[in-house]
Amino acid sequence: MNTELKQILEAVKAGDMSVDDAALKIKEEPFVDLGYAKVDMQRKMRQGAAEVVYGAGKTAEQISGILKAMKDRGQSPVLVTRMDSEKAAVVLKEHPDLYYNGQARIGILGKVPEPDGIGRIVIATGGTSDIPVAEEAALTAEVLGNEVLRLYDVGVAGIHRLLAHMEYVMDASVIIAIAGMEGALASVIGGLADCPVIAVPTSVGYGASFNGLSALLSMLNSCASGVSVVNIDNGFGAGYCASQINHMEAKK
Amino acid sequence: MNTELKQILEAVKAGDMSVDDAALKIKEEPFVDLGYAKVDMQRKMRQGAAEVVYGAGKTAEQISGILKAMKDRGQSPVLVTRMDSEKAAVVLKEHPDLYYNGQARIGILGKVPEPDGIGRIVIATGGTSDIPVAEEAALTAEVLGNEVLRLYDVGVAGIHRLLAHMEYVMDASVIIAIAGMEGALASVIGGLADCPVIAVPTSVGYGASFNGLSALLSMLNSCASGVSVVNIDNGFGAGYCASQINHMEAKK
Amino acid sequence: MNTELKQILEAVKAGDMSVDDAALKIKEEPFVDLGYAKVDMQRKMRQGAAEVVYGAGKTAEQISGILKAMKDRGQSPVLVTRMDSEKAAVVLKEHPDLYYNGQARIGILGKVPEPDGIGRIVIATGGTSDIPVAEEAALTAEVLGNEVLRLYDVGVAGIHRLLAHMEYVMDASVIIAIAGMEGALASVIGGLADCPVIAVPTSVGYGASFNGLSALLSMLNSCASGVSVVNIDNGFGAGYCASQINHMEAKK
Amino acid sequence: MNTELKQILEAVKAGDMSVDDAALKIKEEPFVDLGYAKVDMQRKMRQGAAEVVYGAGKTAEQISGILKAMKDRGQSPVLVTRMDSEKAAVVLKEHPDLYYNGQARIGILGKVPEPDGIGRIVIATGGTSDIPVAEEAALTAEVLGNEVLRLYDVGVAGIHRLLAHMEYVMDASVIIAIAGMEGALASVIGGLADCPVIAVPTSVGYGASFNGLSALLSMLNSCASGVSVVNIDNGFGAGYCASQINHMEAKK
Amino acid sequence: MNTELKQILEAVKAGDMSVDDAALKIKEEPFVDLGYAKVDMQRKMRQGAAEVVYGAGKTAEQISGILKAMKDRGQSPVLVTRMDSEKAAVVLKEHPDLYYNGQARIGILGKVPEPDGIGRIVIATGGTSDIPVAEEAALTAEVLGNEVLRLYDVGVAGIHRLLAHMEYVMDASVIIAIAGMEGALASVIGGLADCPVIAVPTSVGYGASFNGLSALLSMLNSCASGVSVVNIDNGFGAGYCASQINHMEAKK
Amino acid sequence: MNTELKQILEAVKAGDMSVDDAALKIKEEPFVDLGYAKVDMQRKMRQGAAEVVYGAGKTAEQISGILKAMKDRGQSPVLVTRMDSEKAAVVLKEHPDLYYNGQARIGILGKVPEPDGIGRIVIATGGTSDIPVAEEAALTAEVLGNEVLRLYDVGVAGIHRLLAHMEYVMDASVIIAIAGMEGALASVIGGLADCPVIAVPTSVGYGASFNGLSALLSMLNSCASGVSVVNIDNGFGAGYCASQINHMEAKK
Amino acid sequence: MNTELKQILEAVKAGDMSVDDAALKIKEEPFVDLGYAKVDMQRKMRQGAAEVVYGAGKTAEQISGILKAMKDRGQSPVLVTRMDSEKAAVVLKEHPDLYYNGQARIGILGKVPEPDGIGRIVIATGGTSDIPVAEEAALTAEVLGNEVLRLYDVGVAGIHRLLAHMEYVMDASVIIAIAGMEGALASVIGGLADCPVIAVPTSVGYGASFNGLSALLSMLNSCASGVSVVNIDNGFGAGYCASQINHMEAKK
Amino acid sequence: MNTELKQILEAVKAGDMSVDDAALKIKEEPFVDLGYAKVDMQRKMRQGAAEVVYGAGKTAEQISGILKAMKDRGQSPVLVTRMDSEKAAVVLKEHPDLYYNGQARIGILGKVPEPDGIGRIVIATGGTSDIPVAEEAALTAEVLGNEVLRLYDVGVAGIHRLLAHMEYVMDASVIIAIAGMEGALASVIGGLADCPVIAVPTSVGYGASFNGLSALLSMLNSCASGVSVVNIDNGFGAGYCASQINHMEAKK
Repeated sequence: MNTELKQILEAVKAGDMSVDDAALKIKEEPFVDLGYAKVDMQRKMRQGAAEVVYGAGKTAEQISGILKAMKDRGQSPVLVTRMDSEKAAVVLKEHPDLYYNGQARIGILGKVPEPDGIGRIVIATGGTSDIPVAEEAALTAEVLGNEVLRLYDVGVAGIHRLLAHMEYVMDASVIIAIAGMEGALASVIGGLADCPVIAVPTSVGYGASFNGLSALLSMLNSCASGVSVVNIDNGFGAGYCASQINHMEAKK
Repeated sequence: MNTELKQILEAVKAGDMSVDDAALKIKEEPFVDLGYAKVDMQRKMRQGAAEVVYGAGKTAEQISGILKAMKDRGQSPVLVTRMDSEKAAVVLKEHPDLYYNGQARIGILGKVPEPDGIGRIVIATGGTSDIPVAEEAALTAEVLGNEVLRLYDVGVAGIHRLLAHMEYVMDASVIIAIAGMEGALASVIGGLADCPVIAVPTSVGYGASFNGLSALLSMLNSCASGVSVVNIDNGFGAGYCASQINHMEAKK
Repeated sequence: MNTELKQILEAVKAGDMSVDDAALKIKEEPFVDLGYAKVDMQRKMRQGAAEVVYGAGKTAEQISGILKAMKDRGQSPVLVTRMDSEKAAVVLKEHPDLYYNGQARIGILGKVPEPDGIGRIVIATGGTSDIPVAEEAALTAEVLGNEVLRLYDVGVAGIHRLLAHMEYVMDASVIIAIAGMEGALASVIGGLADCPVIAVPTSVGYGASFNGLSALLSMLNSCASGVSVVNIDNGFGAGYCASQINHMEAKK
Repeated sequence: MNTELKQILEAVKAGDMSVDDAALKIKEEPFVDLGYAKVDMQRKMRQGAAEVVYGAGKTAEQISGILKAMKDRGQSPVLVTRMDSEKAAVVLKEHPDLYYNGQARIGILGKVPEPDGIGRIVIATGGTSDIPVAEEAALTAEVLGNEVLRLYDVGVAGIHRLLAHMEYVMDASVIIAIAGMEGALASVIGGLADCPVIAVPTSVGYGASFNGLSALLSMLNSCASGVSVVNIDNGFGAGYCASQINHMEAKK
Repeated sequence: MNTELKQILEAVKAGDMSVDDAALKIKEEPFVDLGYAKVDMQRKMRQGAAEVVYGAGKTAEQISGILKAMKDRGQSPVLVTRMDSEKAAVVLKEHPDLYYNGQARIGILGKVPEPDGIGRIVIATGGTSDIPVAEEAALTAEVLGNEVLRLYDVGVAGIHRLLAHMEYVMDASVIIAIAGMEGALASVIGGLADCPVIAVPTSVGYGASFNGLSALLSMLNSCASGVSVVNIDNGFGAGYCASQINHMEAKK
Repeated sequence: MNTELKQILEAVKAGDMSVDDAALKIKEEPFVDLGYAKVDMQRKMRQGAAEVVYGAGKTAEQISGILKAMKDRGQSPVLVTRMDSEKAAVVLKEHPDLYYNGQARIGILGKVPEPDGIGRIVIATGGTSDIPVAEEAALTAEVLGNEVLRLYDVGVAGIHRLLAHMEYVMDASVIIAIAGMEGALASVIGGLADCPVIAVPTSVGYGASFNGLSALLSMLNSCASGVSVVNIDNGFGAGYCASQINHMEAKK
Repeated sequence: MNTELKQILEAVKAGDMSVDDAALKIKEEPFVDLGYAKVDMQRKMRQGAAEVVYGAGKTAEQISGILKAMKDRGQSPVLVTRMDSEKAAVVLKEHPDLYYNGQARIGILGKVPEPDGIGRIVIATGGTSDIPVAEEAALTAEVLGNEVLRLYDVGVAGIHRLLAHMEYVMDASVIIAIAGMEGALASVIGGLADCPVIAVPTSVGYGASFNGLSALLSMLNSCASGVSVVNIDNGFGAGYCASQINHMEAKK
Repeated sequence: MNTELKQILEAVKAGDMSVDDAALKIKEEPFVDLGYAKVDMQRKMRQGAAEVVYGAGKTAEQISGILKAMKDRGQSPVLVTRMDSEKAAVVLKEHPDLYYNGQARIGILGKVPEPDGIGRIVIATGGTSDIPVAEEAALTAEVLGNEVLRLYDVGVAGIHRLLAHMEYVMDASVIIAIAGMEGALASVIGGLADCPVIAVPTSVGYGASFNGLSALLSMLNSCASGVSVVNIDNGFGAGYCASQINHMEAKK
């Protein structure tokens, strides 16, 4: 950034760029304005990740428009999250090359890259009902270039199910612990593992689970060190965080 | 009850009791009215347990007065809960024979009976900070005639500490699982044990523990079957419930 | 457990079992992995209860698959909870021998055993609207081998309805008190009965009942000793806890 | 009101009052402005009740000043609520004729009138710890001209204590039911009585009582008809409401 | 009650009643047990009000059954609350003489009595959207024998609308103040009126009204004396309380 | 107002107006009473703004009736808010001249005036999903005579999108900052701008956004000075407030 | 800003400024870094307001240090908010020229300017207990150059107190409505006034006021248009917002 | 682990270890039992981090005892968190070699290691009041072998303070974003940075900050990807997580 700024100023000084052009350049918008959305075209450059479109609250037409703008500018892969099957049906008409996973409510445009992270991301769930959130996390992580191991239905009510897979827990580069109800899985894994643990509370449960509040509070209060938390049902966020961590070594 | 009622009516019929006396008898108050308190003198008869005085919100003078009324009528043992050390100091002047435990904020008047329950009550805590609540539970259970085994600081962040004591968990008649923060201990024990588990959330923690709300919700949402919950920091209630369960066989 | 471990080690020492086999055995998974679920096949052995499948959040196909795996391994009876009628219709095609109760949203595979508990479990509700939760509790308790007495619509607004059935309250081995709105039934029963009381708050009510929160808090704050609480609308949990308590004498 | 307005207009028409005087009169402030308080001098006229000063959040000097302004204008009796003993000590120096009750945190200036209501107000509490709130209600009701019967420590955990006093419940003109913890007393009394019941939740309790929230929700959700609720610990409000009801016959 | 008991005992003594009959009589259930409901047949006698059936959470068949049981025993009028139009359609087939008001979700069986209260109940709403709750209150009060004046859409945002009807406010025997959103109407009326005010928060509003919580808290914290509160949207409760108050003079 | 009152009184004195007429005039209702609504016909006079009808909770028929009453009395323009498309379809049959915007759920009857405010109102949103609320604010402001600049999808996750439009932020007369999720946009704009900022939290988000609570709390706690907040999703309120501020200079 | 940037670039082009100097200038920090605080020295320039130091959470030494840094650079006046009397005593030793108001917890360094706003800011409170918050608002507004009229203790329970001062309400340029408990004052004023209203909920109250939550929700849900809200007890924020609005005309 | 288990079994097979010794070894407790605490002596081995003692809720004597047990077994360094100055004074008498930092409430026993992480951890705070939490995070990270850069008081209300330090943000290996009030800092940094961001909400603020709830919800709902959250005021947790991430490369 510093460098870029200096280059522009040097160009001004050298007379290679007019003052007006330079002022414009410095202020230049790194996005395409569709009116209803300002689509970021430099995030990959800035943050080294695939583009992401948050599908909830957008109409199918808006999603299609954003995908088109990205495709036109060569962005790939592009991940669409929280797109329900109705919207997906509409978007698929415009973008038949979109891969859509209804369980995870995720669409992917473009090629999923080969895994190039430090190690393997393990995604564990407390129960069967947590799988849609887990798949959102898994597909996100895969699109971002990670190897993923799925370890589903290993909740603490039958802790032998988790202990029986200790080798996966011990080998993981990052673990995503996904659970609803009392969310205790995050603490138990946090106490066993020696790698970062991203906890995802889910809205699975009823009554005093208050749509995930119980699991959320549990995870925030984890007595195990090394556990950080994302929003309720936020599989995408967990997959994104885990991928960032799993690509640490490539950074400098 | 039926029997008692019939006896009274038979006595009326037989002329052994006047109508007025019978009407009075049927309505008779099974308590002593001190003005500020109506002290129950028949609970032991009705519910088969020691008398209990809830000390919070009562003045030391009121506690002393209630104890005196009970002692005068031969109630023993009597348990006083949630009596802080300032009140205890005042009460002890009037009742020097009171045993007072400051950590558990419990006072006991009279002799603690020999254990006569089905088996052993195991009291487990997640951490060191939960011990005051655990001691309230333990002393309550002991006053009510139970053998108690203390298993402190076995929280799930270091699950090997709990697994190392599995034999106590497997041998227990009832387990009281006490934990603050995320309260996961109840679920883990609930999944491992084959006996009733009483969960006690504690106000241990900070921030999003919201004074025990986090642990409370966790425990209510336990994915393990066979876990029931009492109020935050309610060691007494847990000890009482556990004792009732541990004395089931004596019932019929 | 200790014994089992020692047997394996003795076998290793005696050369009857290879080191690899022993390591495997110790780690052996006591469940069948269906991918979406790790079905526990040893719970009955470990915890002495029928198998339970939590139906909410599972697809009808997943429930069917789990039932098949259990049937294949001779598990019986199996209880499916929180299975709505749409799912049940699908499951019944695969498992025509499943008994399904729509009010309680419960399915039962296999024969309900004869009652073999200490005494009778009394299930009381505050109102007519609480009956679905009560039936979930009642069927659960019956599947687990208990005699159940239903005492419905005895809420505290007309306390004579409860007092008129005092003999059932006094005779009970365990009482399950189920109420929505202000949930006062648990405290009143807790004060009258001399046996353990499991309180179940229900989401019956409107406005400031906040979907059962009001009844839940009431029950947690019960001034009656000996009341423990399960999650809102958790009839299953209450039935399970009550059964454990009602089978205490069989334990040692 | 209509009348007053017409009288002024007639006076204007008759030339007995100037236009400016009339405009002033219509707008005239029925209170004394002390800067920090606008003291109402017509409430008694308008609402037929004693004057009330809410003492919380006012300094002792402000309370003294307001009392002086009222005394100067012949207001009597005057009730000061929520005045702690420190403030009372200061106020008493200026107003030695003030009666102060520390338990109820109430001060009374002037003579308490003879009871002139329809019947008797019964004030029942769940426990001993609720007495300060009950006394606030009782003194308020007495200052407003009511006969009060105190029925303390009759909570539902020992319902025989309440049933033993059914005659007071049946004879009451209005009942104030005061309870903390689960607040079930209001529903039980509401179901038994045939008169209006004012419920007062108190902050007595701990943990999940959340400073009276539990009792408040309970009372709002009472399944008994005829129960209305005031703020947590609002003994004054309950006493005031009960007095209004108990003076209904005097109205027209 | 005392009298009844004594009469029974005298009869036993005189030999006019057997001991068993007397024991039975004392315990006799004042309700009809339909299995799913214990229908109270003595409330009118005990509490002097029409019978009420809470329709929510009951099936149309259950409501019909309860109505039939009441009709068979001559109960009239009977009020059914919170019965939606689908249920009403079913019930009307069985009970074509039922009057049904869809806006108020109320059904009435039998003749509405002539008003016989002390004065007039004024029912004021903040807005047009609060009218369904207001009609529930109004019909309830009318069934219970009260004259009702409706004063709708007089919320505080245009306080001249309320001030223009001050004569109704000043003449009222009891006022029911119904409002959603910020619920300020109760305080303003409470400050103007000299009669009891029953406040009903409604779930009208959006966002931070949190389904009536905002109005509920407002009303509980009213700075006006003499305001008591019922549950959110509880028009029935307000009408019932108001009627009790409006019939005070008839009591002794 | 003072003037009006004096004029009436002068007229009475001069004999130009009878006492009864004057009394009536002073009390005269400045609204038309439709039974279900008291339609304000003087707000424009009193508060200098267009008439507004809150459409939620009113039936299409009621909205139509209110519009007719206003049209009959020459009120224009009239704004109808929170009218969904079903109601709008019905209303449009009666009032075909109504302009209806489905995204903003707003109807406008009459001519939108030319902008006559101090400057330009800038309406910024965090994301695409916030646009419906923004359009409600924009149309409201336009109906009230303001120039509006829309700056959509400039949330803080890509702060360059906002910085790229700093000139609009700096030139604004008032800024309306609309955002869901964490609602940080208000603070960032509040720190950058030198004009009043009205913050509107939206219910956009999921999980721990708790339907806008997260954004609401964020905005209330803004560390930037000069930010005030309206209800969740209250685009209308923000547009109204902004218009009032933008018309300040016209006031005196 | 644009201009400044262009000037720098022109200077670079003209050779009057080196590239490095320009890069530095563009990035230059407009604040003084004290380590524990980065003190803004350009806010007055950017936002046209006095400097403000938020005193809560800072030590007296830190406050003193910041004041010194500001004084050294000629900033005046400087406002310190939420500084309790203990801190003030320490700060006054270092800065004896500081004016300190203990009721408002505000310190002012430098000369309060003459009022130069559009009109008068009226500050109204519901009760006496709200005065400290009101004084924080009043002093803030005065330091920022506004004439302030204090209208204290005009809560809606005695609405004649407010109506008696209608001329102040009608003449106001901006009104700050401050109230605790049910916070209805904001709605009533919002319905009466034709200028912007800033509502400040206060933590005055008890029980279900939940430390100001009740008043906060009330104000956010105000049915009156033109009301915006700041944080609980945030007198400063209200004063700041009101001042911005009251200086609108000076803007362009 | 697998390896260890096999070694033991091989030893049994080879006769080098008795069956009893092996059974013991497998079950061996990797902690020292002090009664009130089970001190973990293998965490460093298992999780590669320094030992940590959570000081809150433990007495000074208990902390001293735990430190002694660790010192005796050669554990170093040991971190004690949340130890207030009173406890520290007592502990320091027993352990004069303890380093204690009162602002961060942290004690360190033993030598802080040289930084050996991937890069630099940047710790940013919104304000001066957040510094204690930031120092807890910073000291924790340093004890765990990380280089830390402190960037304090760069909250979003003056976003130029953050932008002026963009080079630190861009160079960071991990960023810990610490803020109270509205907690917007995390989202802004999350949008700017290309590394993992750990967000720490603090309890700084008042009123509707609800002791950190506002900041917590904000951070959980961050619209920026790559932000995960720890408990309110949990500087230790953030430092621990950041260190784990910053040591990723060393793992395999």
